Amino acid sequence: MKIGLDVLGGDYAPESNILGAIAAQKTLKDDQRLVLFGDQEDTVERLKQAGANPDDFDFIHAPDAISMHEHPTKAISQKPNSSIAKGFVLLKNGDIDSFASAGNTGAMLVGAVFSVKTIPGVLRPAIATNVPKLKSGFGLLLDVGANADCKPEMLNQFAILGSLYTQHIYGIQDPKVGLLNIGEEEEKGNNLTISTYPLLKENDKINFIGNAEGRDLFTDLADVYVCDGFTGNVVLKLAESFYVVTLKKGMKDDFFDRFNYEQYGGSPILGVNAPVIIGHGISSPEAIKNMVLLSRNMIESQVVDKIRSAFN
Amino acid sequence: MKIGLDVLGGDYAPESNILGAIAAQKTLKDDQRLVLFGDQEDTVERLKQAGANPDDFDFIHAPDAISMHEHPTKAISQKPNSSIAKGFVLLKNGDIDSFASAGNTGAMLVGAVFSVKTIPGVLRPAIATNVPKLKSGFGLLLDVGANADCKPEMLNQFAILGSLYTQHIYGIQDPKVGLLNIGEEEEKGNNLTISTYPLLKENDKINFIGNAEGRDLFTDLADVYVCDGFTGNVVLKLAESFYVVTLKKGMKDDFFDRFNYEQYGGSPILGVNAPVIIGHGISSPEAIKNMVLLSRNMIESQVVDKIRSAFN
Repeated sequence: MKIGLDVLGGDYAPESNILGAIAAQKTLKDDQRLVLFGDQEDTVERLKQAGANPDDFDFIHAPDAISMHEHPTKAISQKPNSSIAKGFVLLKNGDIDSFASAGNTGAMLVGAVFSVKTIPGVLRPAIATNVPKLKSGFGLLLDVGANADCKPEMLNQFAILGSLYTQHIYGIQDPKVGLLNIGEEEEKGNNLTISTYPLLKENDKINFIGNAEGRDLFTDLADVYVCDGFTGNVVLKLAESFYVVTLKKGMKDDFFDRFNYEQYGGSPILGVNAPVIIGHGISSPEAIKNMVLLSRNMIESQVVDKIRSAFN
Repeated sequence: MKIGLDVLGGDYAPESNILGAIAAQKTLKDDQRLVLFGDQEDTVERLKQAGANPDDFDFIHAPDAISMHEHPTKAISQKPNSSIAKGFVLLKNGDIDSFASAGNTGAMLVGAVFSVKTIPGVLRPAIATNVPKLKSGFGLLLDVGANADCKPEMLNQFAILGSLYTQHIYGIQDPKVGLLNIGEEEEKGNNLTISTYPLLKENDKINFIGNAEGRDLFTDLADVYVCDGFTGNVVLKLAESFYVVTLKKGMKDDFFDRFNYEQYGGSPILGVNAPVIIGHGISSPEAIKNMVLLSRNMIESQVVDKIRSAFN
């Protein structure tokens, strides 16, 4: 197993990424190799300085970084030696089994779709994020930004993607799917959700429990919440800002702790032909470490194969 | 001045409404009368039991209640003796200067649009809600549910409605308007926000400051946040659920306190020809009191006239 990690992506790269990689590597088995994409010489030097043995890692020399504000498509095509572009070349060729980066989200999405491609039958990949539940554990919210405008058929597929992910990564059997909406009744909503409801209701690949409102997101009502990428992104960023407020105010609480992005490492792009994970821009070493472990989990669980089978 | 209040609307009606009315009445001047819509005999009896003098109030006998789950249009037309239907008849005739209810939101919206009508030039009224700012004070978010699907021109008008409201009700001069969106840059967003941005940019009746993300909602970035009613409703209910979590966990904080709907009493319907306020379904006496005081404030500030002038 080869787990690809971008050393240059994220606000605290490369330091944070190197430290995270070292921490992750310690938990890997012998046949699980971490492949680091970045300036090879610099990376080796930093590993040594941090007391790690470079022999424990594989390296792909990719000295260019794609910054947060670069245009995704242009950057991928104009920077073939960037860590993200190289990562997707190797992922496409099967030289690595997953690729993760805390860098430019758009570049990660474009790279994934252009290299390993969308799974046949999937209309559009979605970015999924963890949603902490009040009692314990996590739910999943998707899409949170890959598709600002969605069609009902896309949301219906997100439900399948999210169900398979929560089943194989979180171990939730028969995960409950809720449609994020603005009313409990079937006829409530906007054009998109009103048209999506009957599709979800008749989708025998999922366990649809009906509409969920904003207030239900952290309850046990559902395990998977589907929505368009605009709504999901607003919700995600609002929830993050609440978490930041509780942090700043020194409010320690088990529920709020589970908002900590560091714990889950990153957000998977679901619906593409390989495990691809996008980390938070401010990823700490702990977050990077957990992004690597999530990558391993996605490879081991063969969740991408399960998704492919479902859409076959 | 005559302030109309629905005694029968809300989960804790009529008890809560009566107590709120009594508290509000104590702060009214001699020429400010509270007009109570409900079962007159029962209302008088309850006022007496609570130690209030019925002579301090006006009454309109309207014994029927429209429940939370009734179909708005049907209920308004089939229950002419309901407190909400009667309220709008008197509002239309100028017998009261404002009408407020913690009852069925849809019925309030339908009642307002069918009776006092949408202000000429306004495409669609919007429901606005307070958004507490981290430092102090409030911003405004609209629409939060009147229009699940919006056109760019509607959002552009919401910006004007919200600006006039925050200016005349909150006393914010030249209020900053932010477009709730999923990226900072002008070209980011979904079809709706991408098309709305240039309209806001060229709207010389507002002080547009650009896009705002979910994480910006509680900051000082803007005073007025505009979005479609679907997004706004999801955001509102999510924010409320956070507040409930902090309450349940016993977290006392000045910022969280300002989420308390009781403090601001209700959400105005902006863009109709009279002050109309919708209270929270679980309105306490304190919330009802503040809904009455907000009604007075909307009448005194002549904010509806200001809106009418802006669209003239």
